[in-house]
Amino acid sequence: MTTIELPRSQDAMPEGLPTFADVEAAAARIAGQAVVTPLLESPELNQRLGGRILIKPENLQRCGSFKFRGAFNRLSLIPEAIRARGVVAYSSGNHAQGVAASAQIYGVPATIVMPSDAPRVKIENTKAYGAKVVLYDRFGEDRAAVADAILARSGATLVKPYDDLGVIAGQGTCGLEIVRQAEAMKAKLDAVLVCCGGGGLTAGIALAVDALSPATEVFTVEPEGFDDTLRSLETGERMTNRPDARSICDAIVTPSPGELTFALNRRLLKGGLAVSDEEVLRAVAFAFRKLKLVVEPGGAVCLAAVLSGKLPVAGRTIALTLSGGNVDAERMMEALALD
Amino acid sequence: MTTIELPRSQDAMPEGLPTFADVEAAAARIAGQAVVTPLLESPELNQRLGGRILIKPENLQRCGSFKFRGAFNRLSLIPEAIRARGVVAYSSGNHAQGVAASAQIYGVPATIVMPSDAPRVKIENTKAYGAKVVLYDRFGEDRAAVADAILARSGATLVKPYDDLGVIAGQGTCGLEIVRQAEAMKAKLDAVLVCCGGGGLTAGIALAVDALSPATEVFTVEPEGFDDTLRSLETGERMTNRPDARSICDAIVTPSPGELTFALNRRLLKGGLAVSDEEVLRAVAFAFRKLKLVVEPGGAVCLAAVLSGKLPVAGRTIALTLSGGNVDAERMMEALALD
Repeated sequence: MTTIELPRSQDAMPEGLPTFADVEAAAARIAGQAVVTPLLESPELNQRLGGRILIKPENLQRCGSFKFRGAFNRLSLIPEAIRARGVVAYSSGNHAQGVAASAQIYGVPATIVMPSDAPRVKIENTKAYGAKVVLYDRFGEDRAAVADAILARSGATLVKPYDDLGVIAGQGTCGLEIVRQAEAMKAKLDAVLVCCGGGGLTAGIALAVDALSPATEVFTVEPEGFDDTLRSLETGERMTNRPDARSICDAIVTPSPGELTFALNRRLLKGGLAVSDEEVLRAVAFAFRKLKLVVEPGGAVCLAAVLSGKLPVAGRTIALTLSGGNVDAERMMEALALD
Repeated sequence: MTTIELPRSQDAMPEGLPTFADVEAAAARIAGQAVVTPLLESPELNQRLGGRILIKPENLQRCGSFKFRGAFNRLSLIPEAIRARGVVAYSSGNHAQGVAASAQIYGVPATIVMPSDAPRVKIENTKAYGAKVVLYDRFGEDRAAVADAILARSGATLVKPYDDLGVIAGQGTCGLEIVRQAEAMKAKLDAVLVCCGGGGLTAGIALAVDALSPATEVFTVEPEGFDDTLRSLETGERMTNRPDARSICDAIVTPSPGELTFALNRRLLKGGLAVSDEEVLRAVAFAFRKLKLVVEPGGAVCLAAVLSGKLPVAGRTIALTLSGGNVDAERMMEALALD
């Protein structure tokens, strides 16, 4: 709930982690396939909060979330003969669509393991990209085990949702754009807020910000009950969420930080915040009414953090991600009915 | 319904019309107040239509529609001592918000005459910008007469919604941005589609396109039953819509083209199209689901024209305006329930 103030660890970086050079290489690979989303500014939001808010709307990204960046970069890194055997992913839906669309572009088969309670729009879109969808019970089955069985049969390549060098580097291209677009707008970024599930987008953005704008602080925002990265930053160890935790932020309800993502995040982040489902729904409604953007709950946590006052922005310049927009109509109505 | 092919009139331009120089001057005046909206591209929309579609999302403009551009430019042109007496406007809601917000920026009073059946979101937002709202019956009262009575009492300045040099020039800044942003994206524009009510946005954009990209064709898109500009282009005279015509496109259900706007449009446009309310609702739903943008019916007519196939886009590069996003939740639900 509170912003923590972590000193940067002085430990050496482990082997096998992506670097900023990987982010730059990813940017070249995804150019022409991914959308260079704009960096938006709303005079009314600025006025309301008394600061300067720069919005990175990854809901406008191909497939409706940032996930296409990492998925396409990862598929590009698989040797062609191996890629031809296909790819497999497990995902609540946004990574699913990113992998399915990337596989379609490369003309290779994709099988996606998705929770049976994922938003319909995500399941339908994943199928529309030509992928085979295998549903599992989010609370009773282990998605990794379901995916493993498929991998063993097919010889396909697993595309992990976040704990992967190529995926993290791909998501980092979002941070590269934020820093460069902010410079073009003559904005000096005090902080960047990132919607955080497994930490892939966060780690990628943090790599880019650390390289290009080291004075800028990076914060995660998570749903209450799924603040594993926040608690892991506090303890210095990867913490796990309670199995009975629930949140409407389906895109980012991961059980614990990734190994690679946390190794980067614990060194590069300034802190983390958590927001309630009601704060998130109010942010979804605000985005609809005032920003005219369709944002899903998991994509609205950063906006919720600034609208709720949990991260003070008065007199500061803050960039924040709206990480996705794949929301069912029913959920949007729930948000718009709040007040 | 069909695209007409008009030769450009060789008549001399009447006196008192804005020129491209007025558009350039307006751009300098609104800089820092209006949002430079991005020019967006959706790989999925391109793939679906087989052409290249560049989307100008004026729903992301300050106050949720392009109207702020013209309103702020117009208010800037009023001498300070006269502006201090206040401004009056009649509007279905988007011009209302643009004038109200501009008056608030200048610290002068605004009175807005609005139809009693305008979307609630537009009435509420107009009040939120500090304006006094006077409601009238759209089908029983003359809004100009209502406004005149207020003007006579107050000494305020009337800010017309479209038939005004300063307003047209301000809306033209949208066209200036479209042409320059398309150039930056290395896109050679075959055509620009503009959502058309009274024709102010169309005339302004046409001025900019004519000056900067004369080979690019400009088309209006109107709701069926309110295709007065299309029919006026065909006959060469300003035609009026039937008083019993109805459309959900509240932002652009004007009775006939403006005098100034039509004088420009008949010389600068290539033709016009009309779309049905159902085609519009499907476009509103497409914008929500695929583009992740909140677009109001009147702002979705151009998208409806390309999605319905009324303007063929295969192999072509087309820019289109999404002119506003001030839609009530109920109308959005109606669109999302269509299929």
